[in-house]
Parts: sequence; C-alpha cells; structure tokens
Amino acid sequence: MVDKKLQLIPLGGLGEFGMNSMAIRYGDDIIVVDAGMMFPDTELMGVDIVTPDFTYLEQNAEHVRGLILTHGHEDHIGGVPFLLAQLTIPVYGTAFTLALVERRLEEHEMVDEAKLNPVKPGDRLELGPFSIEFIHVTHSIVSSVALAITTPAGVIIHTGDFKVDPTPTDNNLFDLHTLAEYGKRGVLLLLSDSTNVDRPGYTESERAVNPRLEDLFVRAPRRLVISCFSSSIHRLQQILDLAAEHGRKVVFFGRSMLNTTEIAHDLGLLTIPNGVLLRPQDAMQMAPSKVVAIVSGTQGEPMSALSRVAVDNHKHLSIEAGDIVALSARIIPGNEKAIYRMINHMSRRGADVIYGTMNPPIHVSGHGSAEELRLVLNLVRPKYFVPVHGEYRQMAKHAQLAQHLSHAGLEQTFILESGETLEIDGAGARKGEPVPVGRVCIDSGTLDEVVEDIVIRDRRHLSEDGFVLPIIAINKATGRSEGLPEIVSRGFMSLEDSSEVLQGARQVVMKTLDSSTVEERGDWGVIQEKIRADLKRYLTKQTSRRPLIMPVILEV
Amino acid sequence: MVDKKLQLIPLGGLGEFGMNSMAIRYGDDIIVVDAGMMFPDTELMGVDIVTPDFTYLEQNAEHVRGLILTHGHEDHIGGVPFLLAQLTIPVYGTAFTLALVERRLEEHEMVDEAKLNPVKPGDRLELGPFSIEFIHVTHSIVSSVALAITTPAGVIIHTGDFKVDPTPTDNNLFDLHTLAEYGKRGVLLLLSDSTNVDRPGYTESERAVNPRLEDLFVRAPRRLVISCFSSSIHRLQQILDLAAEHGRKVVFFGRSMLNTTEIAHDLGLLTIPNGVLLRPQDAMQMAPSKVVAIVSGTQGEPMSALSRVAVDNHKHLSIEAGDIVALSARIIPGNEKAIYRMINHMSRRGADVIYGTMNPPIHVSGHGSAEELRLVLNLVRPKYFVPVHGEYRQMAKHAQLAQHLSHAGLEQTFILESGETLEIDGAGARKGEPVPVGRVCIDSGTLDEVVEDIVIRDRRHLSEDGFVLPIIAINKATGRSEGLPEIVSRGFMSLEDSSEVLQGARQVVMKTLDSSTVEERGDWGVIQEKIRADLKRYLTKQTSRRPLIMPVILEV
Repeated sequence: MVDKKLQLIPLGGLGEFGMNSMAIRYGDDIIVVDAGMMFPDTELMGVDIVTPDFTYLEQNAEHVRGLILTHGHEDHIGGVPFLLAQLTIPVYGTAFTLALVERRLEEHEMVDEAKLNPVKPGDRLELGPFSIEFIHVTHSIVSSVALAITTPAGVIIHTGDFKVDPTPTDNNLFDLHTLAEYGKRGVLLLLSDSTNVDRPGYTESERAVNPRLEDLFVRAPRRLVISCFSSSIHRLQQILDLAAEHGRKVVFFGRSMLNTTEIAHDLGLLTIPNGVLLRPQDAMQMAPSKVVAIVSGTQGEPMSALSRVAVDNHKHLSIEAGDIVALSARIIPGNEKAIYRMINHMSRRGADVIYGTMNPPIHVSGHGSAEELRLVLNLVRPKYFVPVHGEYRQMAKHAQLAQHLSHAGLEQTFILESGETLEIDGAGARKGEPVPVGRVCIDSGTLDEVVEDIVIRDRRHLSEDGFVLPIIAINKATGRSEGLPEIVSRGFMSLEDSSEVLQGARQVVMKTLDSSTVEERGDWGVIQEKIRADLKRYLTKQTSRRPLIMPVILEV
Repeated sequence: MVDKKLQLIPLGGLGEFGMNSMAIRYGDDIIVVDAGMMFPDTELMGVDIVTPDFTYLEQNAEHVRGLILTHGHEDHIGGVPFLLAQLTIPVYGTAFTLALVERRLEEHEMVDEAKLNPVKPGDRLELGPFSIEFIHVTHSIVSSVALAITTPAGVIIHTGDFKVDPTPTDNNLFDLHTLAEYGKRGVLLLLSDSTNVDRPGYTESERAVNPRLEDLFVRAPRRLVISCFSSSIHRLQQILDLAAEHGRKVVFFGRSMLNTTEIAHDLGLLTIPNGVLLRPQDAMQMAPSKVVAIVSGTQGEPMSALSRVAVDNHKHLSIEAGDIVALSARIIPGNEKAIYRMINHMSRRGADVIYGTMNPPIHVSGHGSAEELRLVLNLVRPKYFVPVHGEYRQMAKHAQLAQHLSHAGLEQTFILESGETLEIDGAGARKGEPVPVGRVCIDSGTLDEVVEDIVIRDRRHLSEDGFVLPIIAINKATGRSEGLPEIVSRGFMSLEDSSEVLQGARQVVMKTLDSSTVEERGDWGVIQEKIRADLKRYLTKQTSRRPLIMPVILEV
C-alpha cells in the first residue's frame, strides 16, 4: 500500500493572502482541508468575493472523500458554498465552525443538500485511506483545530491557524501534548501557518487585552462603544464580563454580531451574565455611563453598523461628545483610508477614538509569532516541511525559521505556491506536476455571477481614462457612411473640455474613412481597427489620455 | 494698525492628509506658507496628482506678497508649479528646498519666470506687514524650517513639519532657543504639526537607525540593497559613511535618487567619502560582498528602480540568492499590496528582505510624537492654538494634548478644516467666513489636465460594472428608427455570458420605442431617458449589475 504516491495540492492560500484550500491525495483518494475566500484587491474592479478555482476537484469529483474545516474564519470557510455547488461531498468541522458554514449556505439556499458532520477535538475520522485526528488549538476564533492526518505513507500535521496562547480566556489550552506525541512517533510532513512569521518573539495572550479593556470601563465618563470582529468570541466574552463587573448594560449592533453571538451562546461557547443585555431600541434611553455598545464594522465597511453610526445614520445609536470608541481589531492592509474616514467622522462628533497602535493596543493577534512557530516546528520535528497560509515573503521566512531542524531530522523544506504540488513516495519528496488553479472573481455573492479576467481588465482601463466611442452609420445598400460620425464619451474629460477634442476626433474618423480603399471599407474589422489606431494617436497627442476606444459600425 | 483683522485661511492639509497650504492675511496683505500636493486615493480613478484649489489666492492675486516654503517634501512643495501657473509671486525657502522646487519647475518649463529667493535659518524677511524669521528644525529632510511670523496683531509660530531630534546625524540641533525666546515674549498663535500625535513618547533619533544599518553591513554575506526616500539625505549620509567604513562601494539607482544626491552634494549637505562611488554599469562586476546599492522605490511604485529590480527587469542590477534587501522607509497606508508584491518577487529570487516592523526597524519617523509636540506647545505657550497637518482625528488628539496649557495662558484651541478660517482682532479669536477650497485632480502631471469630479464619478461607475450603450439610428426625414437598435458593452460581462442578455436588451429598447408616443419620440431627451430607465430595470433584474447606461441616438 505504501507504494502509492502521496500528493499535496494547494488550491489557494499559498503565495497569496486568503482563500486557503489544500487537497491531499493518496493514490485515488482525495480529502480537502478548508475552502476559503478572500476579499479582492481594489485592482479587481467591482468584484466582491474571490474564491479558489476548484477545477482540480471537479475533474476528480469521484475521488473526493470529504471537506475538513479547521476553523470558522472567512479565509477558511467562505468558499464552501461555491465548492459545494460544484461537488457533493460531506463536510467535517467543529460545531461552531459548521454553524457559521450553515448561515452561509442558508444565504445561498443550499443548506438542505449539505451534509455537515460535527466533530470534536480528540475525535478520529476515517475517510478512505486517511485517518484524521482533530487537535484543539488556540486562535482568535473559538473551536479551532489542527489536523493529524495519518496516511499509509506517514503522518501529516496541518496546523490550521493558531497561536500558542498560554492563558486563553476560556482556559482551554492548546493541545501541545498530542502534537508532541505525534512528533515523538514521527511525522512525515508538517504544514504550518506562516501569517505572523515576520513578528519576533511571542504573540500576546488574548488575556492581555483584559486590563486595557478594563481601563476603558474605568475611565469612560459616558457611553463606551467597542467594535471587534463578530467572530472574536473570546473578546466578546471579556467585554460581557467587564460590563457585568462595572455595572454597564451591553447592547449589540450589526447583523453579523447578532448572528455569531447567538450561535456561540447556543453552543455554550459564550456566557451572557444575567440581565446584562440591553435591547437596541433602549441604547440611547439608558444613562450613558451605564452602557457599552458592541458594534460590528472595524474595517470601515461602508454598510456596517459602525460606519452608519459614524455618520449618525443609525436608528438606535448616536455618537455624542465625550463617548469613548475603541476599535478592538487590527487594521487590515488596504482598509486604512476607509477606517480613518470613519474615525474622523466620530472625532468630529466629539468622541475619543482609540485605535491602531495607540498605547496600549486594545487588540492582540490570533496568529503565533516566530517563537511560537519554532515551538510547533520543534514539537513536530517533521521529515518534510511546507509553510502554508502566507505570501511568498512569509513562507520564505518560515522556511528560514525551520533551518535549525536539519539537525533534528528535517530533510527538506518546500516552498509551494498555489497550484504547485508536492509528491512523496518511497524514493522521497519532490515537486510534482502543477495543477490548474486560480482565482474566481464573483460579483455580488451569488453563485453564478463570475467575472472574467477580460472584463476586469476592461473595467480597469475604463477606470483610468473612460471611453470614447466613434459611431459610424453605414448604409446597407450603398456601403457608404450616412451623415457625420457621432462620438460619445464618458469618464474621459469634462463635457466642456472635451467638446473641441471630440470635434477634432470626428474629423479624424472622417479622414480615416475617406482615405480608406473600398476594400477596407467593406471589411468592418479592418476599418474599425484603422479608426481605433488613428483615434488613439490623435487623442494621446491632444490629451495624453488613453481612453478605451471602441468604434461601432451601425448598419442602417 | 492693530485694528485690522488677522486671518488664517487653510487651503489644504487640515482635515486631510497631504497638500499642505496655509494663507495668512493681515488687512489686505496675504502670505502663503507651503503649496503641497498629495497622491490620490485609489478612489480617484486615473488621477495622478491632487493639489489644493488656489481660487482664493487667484481672487486676491494683487494682495499676495509671497510664498514661503518650510521644507522640500512633496506635500509641501508639490503644488508650487500649479500655484505659480496661476499667480506670479516670489518664493522663499532654504537653498535645498528651492533646488527641489527648481527641478519640478524645470519639468513644467517654468523655471525662467520663477523668482526663487533662498533664505537661511536666522534670516528675517519683510513682506508687507509681516516680518518672518526662519528657525531651524530637525526633520527627515534636511534644511527644514519653522516660521516665526510677526504681525501687527502678534506673533504666529508655524512649525512646518518637525521632530525634536536630540542627536541629528548632522549635529545641527533644533533651534529650541529661538522658539523659547518667542514663547517668553508672547506668541499669539501656534500652528503645529499633528502627524504623529497618536504615537506616545518620543520619536527615535535618526541616529537610532545607525547600529541597525551597521548590523546589515556586518552580516550581509553578499550584495546589500537598501531602499529609502531619495530626500532622506540624513539616511543616505549614514549609508555612505558605513560603506566607507566597511569597505563597500556605493551605487545609486533611480532618477530621483541621482537628482537629490546631486543637489545635496552641490550644496554641501551630503559628504561623499573619497572613492566610495561605483558606476551603475559596474554594480554587477564588483564582488558582491563589496557592494551596497541604494535604490529608489520604497513604496513599490510600478516604474521605480526597485520594482524593476524585483522582477529582474533592470539594466544594471539583479537580485541574487543570498542578497540582503532592506526597505528603510515606512509603508505609506494604501501602498501595502504593491510593496508586498515587490517583496514577494525579491524573496522568490532568494533575497532576505528586511521591511516593516521586523525587529529592529531600519527606519525612524521624521515627525515628533506626543511628548515632542507637548515640548513645543510648552515652549511656545501660545494664546491660541491651531493644530495643522493631519486628518481630523489627529488634529482632535492634538487639541486634547494642549488642554493643560489652559493654565499657562492658552485661551482657545481651534480645530479648523481646509476652507474654515480663523479671525483674530482686538475682540478675540473666532471662526470666520469659509472660503472656497477643494482638491484639483490632475491626470498626467501637466499643468492643465484637470479632471473634474463628474468625470471621476463616471470612471468609478465604469470601474464597477462597465457600460452598456444602446444605439438607435433615427431617420432624419421620417423620424423613425432605422434597422434594429445596436447594443455595445464593455467591462459588463464576458461576451459569452452577455450575448443572451444583450439580445434581450435589444427587445427592451424596441419595446420602449414602440410604446412611445410620437411626441416622446420627437424629444430625444425624453426617449433617451425612457430607454435608460427601462434598460436599467431589465439589466438589474437579469444580472444584478448596474452598468453605466447611455443611450445614443444617431441621426441618419
């Protein structure tokens, strides 16, 4: 049985930020770990969601035994509906993770067909030749697991996302013992989270936020508004407990906040102190010094509750002078300007806004720093190592970090990017044939609104200098142009500035038509291209702009 | 004479990041402090440069006595060519600042008309009723000054940008003495830099970078590539000195780098150790362990030298495995993705890239943190205080920081945003009538390629969902449509996906035409609007996209 090949097929998240998904194949059996999404760069004009291209799984549909989820963050579960729309496979994960998946499937009306199977840390799952043990890890979201995947070729440890929190708020420690046992028995391959590899030392414990939050409760003269990720159940628990201690009522705002707290509460993962909750409609009635509002929207998302509160456009909550607003989350690169705009609005209303690295930060990361990554490397001491979850720069640093293990059995580290595969057999490990991967751009969150690259390229071109469309009416009977060519444009120049330029452009089109042979005029492809080229030259010279030019020939 | 009004008219940089410019008016005399630009948000589609709207100065052209520059950063001098194109006024600044302005004016072929007047710290300049003393301050760029502006109404201190560097690399200390003297004699109004108000404590000295740079020189086994802002003369001096000490040759790459080092060297502000320079074409010939390359492009600008080096597309420099690359600059918010992409490319080539807050950072800020801002506040102890250079959130924090001065003579702090004015006369200080301000969006760096808001709005719309253009040919003689309506689109959906939708759209247009009265069809405005509305409804329903729809009626 060991003569079959073990293959690692990264479908997303290696060499890119987000949309993590990894297929593992032994012989003809495949399991998939995570199916995430990412939010697009601004360069992806008008695209709302990006998921991995699951073509490889579709092509091997009959071999895929199941999807295993490590935790409930968007970059690990956001692509599940899109994968399940292509493939009918069972899904495994902790109850909390699956509850979040279920909400997402409900949005797509897919919840009835889905086969969601809850598992617990310590459980063992048999899927074809794979035996998978779930190992509890600490992370910013509750119910996160690492995977120990025993295959006939050896054991694979997949960490998922983790930090090694020595004092988690729920006292549920990282199960280092199980990891150590696997390490002792021998691990073939380690896949480990690279997110924070460029941070030296250790990531602070989630509990480090507590005194800083408490300071806000102590010194806030009036209303306290705290925003955090709705999935940060640990953080929410701390705020709820502090509120009860300091005699403040808690009111939640934002749909995702209500969703996840309800799920976490139902599963016994969030304890709500008796009588601490306040209804949204009562938030402004209560004495301001007796209220803490927990509001979603740390990233300045335009339709989020906090963004609406910032511009005083929320039904049940207003910012007033003397309020303290704390953003208890990191600023995701790319969101700075939106977040700062929101903070400016709240500052204008007289709020004292606490954010970013103001001392001391009201946030700690959920990902382990260099020394935690080293700890896991040293416990697992694998034969082969593949850094996962990171851009190339991060995976390269992570590979560097593992170098010392060459004295403790590490034979080779492979830096793979999505689509690059790894093969392991009796003869050793090597990079294999690449598989087709890529990103699928989705417009509005429905399953089928896929945007193709060419469309995105056109949108980007349009966003730079707009368009100029020369329209020529050609008489079907005579083959000659009727009337003057019309030229319409948008996003190019202001009407005022462009009228002269466009007048000239009409002359250019006329001249091109006149100077063309009968043959050329008969071939619309040729004449369109001639017009485009001449117009481009003229417009570049006149305006140094490069609008999208698209000649239209109208048969009349 | 004191019965005239003193007015503060912020034209840019208050309540926004960049394009700093402040007009100060006493009676009928106006001086302008700085004329900066800013690089646009990605939301400003296709716009290259943004400058303040100088309409107020144009309208008061005969009263403007001069432009005074505090230092040579783009956000303080980048708008000078655009201001001088509208207004003929003398310009004052230190020799280094003016040399940078001159380069910019050369690009616009404006250098001959400009009246550039160099000044030195300690100089006093008389302009109408204003007497201006230049005060040396420490900042990331050399030759920076604060201004003490004596008016009949009292003294205004404008700090420009500053940090209080206790050990500047050129040993040229911040002239705190002069500031203290003014403070002792009594200052009417302080305008102070708010950039780093949200950082606690003190900003590290520029000299703090030295041991961290030295560490790179010591441990780099091969080529050392350092990127910093070309205007960071202090930083460049440190690298040059370390290179001489450690027996490495220095080679500069990037046009701006060559420009500024040449200027600084000519002015005696940069000392180039004998024989340390290497010609670009010799960079790859020299033994790698004997070379340090200084390359411009810390922000991942696509055409910069470093970006080209990263993708191995530079004539004279390649990254090879084992090279150390250090980004010795901050990551400007909004540039993260471009910078990380560049780092990924260099990591793929085997370089060890040092950037961001990796310990210890190879960069320190040029702006003073909270305690330095407090020091300046306490030395100047003004009667009125206006925080400048910052978004609202930063100016608000700066105002908070000055509260304790109410026990030391501070009567009032005003948070002004660009366009909001302050009036001071015998009766006190108050906000005055606002003046028209705004941002001028410029396409390609020439003086007249101004992009209007409506054009930017159109580009943004186009970038989201592209356009759909129904074209209807109407017979001039009969008033009836000829042939079928044509529909063209780009950036909307892929050709394949859209053909059915657009086929349906033609039917919609036909139906709209058919169902219209003769009167409606006669009024092109009406019929265009009807078609637009019907098509919008149809496309939203079919595709949930909202392309720009622009019906064109062609007379044939």
